[in-house]
Amino acid sequence: SDAVKANDLQRTRLTYENRSNLAKSAVAKRLFQLMASKQTNLCLSADVTKADDILDIADKCGPYICLLKTHIDIVEDFSEGFITNLQALAKRHNFLLLEDRKFADIGNTVSLQYGKGLYKISNWADLVTAHTLPGRSILQGLKAALGNVEAGQERGVFLLSEMSASGNLIDDKYKENSNKIATEGGDIDFVAGIVCQSSNAFAFPGLIQLTPGVKIDESVDKLGQQYQTPELVVKERGADIGVVGRGIIQANDVQKAAITYRDRLWTAYKERVAK
Amino acid sequence: SDAVKANDLQRTRLTYENRSNLAKSAVAKRLFQLMASKQTNLCLSADVTKADDILDIADKCGPYICLLKTHIDIVEDFSEGFITNLQALAKRHNFLLLEDRKFADIGNTVSLQYGKGLYKISNWADLVTAHTLPGRSILQGLKAALGNVEAGQERGVFLLSEMSASGNLIDDKYKENSNKIATEGGDIDFVAGIVCQSSNAFAFPGLIQLTPGVKIDESVDKLGQQYQTPELVVKERGADIGVVGRGIIQANDVQKAAITYRDRLWTAYKERVAK
Repeated sequence: SDAVKANDLQRTRLTYENRSNLAKSAVAKRLFQLMASKQTNLCLSADVTKADDILDIADKCGPYICLLKTHIDIVEDFSEGFITNLQALAKRHNFLLLEDRKFADIGNTVSLQYGKGLYKISNWADLVTAHTLPGRSILQGLKAALGNVEAGQERGVFLLSEMSASGNLIDDKYKENSNKIATEGGDIDFVAGIVCQSSNAFAFPGLIQLTPGVKIDESVDKLGQQYQTPELVVKERGADIGVVGRGIIQANDVQKAAITYRDRLWTAYKERVAK
Repeated sequence: SDAVKANDLQRTRLTYENRSNLAKSAVAKRLFQLMASKQTNLCLSADVTKADDILDIADKCGPYICLLKTHIDIVEDFSEGFITNLQALAKRHNFLLLEDRKFADIGNTVSLQYGKGLYKISNWADLVTAHTLPGRSILQGLKAALGNVEAGQERGVFLLSEMSASGNLIDDKYKENSNKIATEGGDIDFVAGIVCQSSNAFAFPGLIQLTPGVKIDESVDKLGQQYQTPELVVKERGADIGVVGRGIIQANDVQKAAITYRDRLWTAYKERVAK
């Protein structure tokens, strides 16, 4: 509708500084400010299975990213020391940690998965991802785990309202319901943003659009993942943060690749808000 | 429609022995046969966070269950030794292991989550759960991890086509697409069954209906979970296996509770197929 388009134009034309003032989530405010001051809207997806490899990539690319995205459950030599080292790198290079857990269970279970087990995700991940499939109780379940987190350690969630996999089952009604869960009710202070592929997925400028599947050479992998360029996702698809995985970690020089992606994503953002 | 009702009547009126002959998945065949010979359609959900507590519950309830359902990522003292002990109990008491991971990511990621990390789920879980949300590539991703599993170790997945959480976003179209993913295409030999709440979610009698949220006293929890009785889920809702969690693990005598649930679920099944 025209109303949605007007809202959407507004969101993608506002600067991150201005949007930080509109955010309901404390960690979203912090991330918007970090992006603006550090001049990066690059999220690095560190999808490798050795702890030392993740630390090495995080150290080399840390100066150029706003977020480091992990799949902690693929790390073969996970330890508490690894988390300590990862947090030290996040502090040194000024980026936040996003555990891409895609929580997708009933409230009682996600509460345990977020706060308990070997990973104790709520203790160290500034942000996590969750599916809206189980409904609004996913937010309540995650928040129920936060009793253990020290005051001042801000936490938030990115809710998925679209996926990049071909043939996924998300339709317009699902997106609309996801948008409602993200923007209505008593738990919206916990929602930092939306994982999606298009600028019409939501309108509220206080939320951050995180878009995975960014790669300079557009392509598909053999398991259904579809890639888009930095310029396309930021300027046409509304991405505030572009997530790059294999485009950086499989590069011969990961630092150089991170700089290239940072530059292209940031330039696309600057051009978007200058329009 | 009438056609669906006819199919559905057929499925729920057939014995597990007969249905094992129709199953496309080797592990579904095995599970149907195990249920028939052991005379149990009870799945115990061992949602506790200490390894020794899970082993204790599994040992006490093992003789009365066909499946033990785990959330391995909530176990605070997970170790390889724990898995060895759990597998020994599964062998001794003749039940299968179902890791309720609810995989819900792109193919490349679920492949790593299933086969790698500390948990190496594909090495020990006979069965796992997965959401159909990412589309058909979820099956391809999971199967891609199975290169490491020794021949003869049969593996399979339960696909979710409904959820028990109130306010979840699953609609009829989603269910229909889930059903298609479970019954069409080249990967259906990997699909053991469907996690759902109603008999009209699918028709094919070679698939096993796993229904969570079973409790003798119907109720809701404060995080949106809704419970139904053993008789209701088996006779009205089409469950082939009823999943009981808190109804057993929070009982004063877990063994006695397991026997009660086994008896009630099994009697309901016998009455269903005798009609």
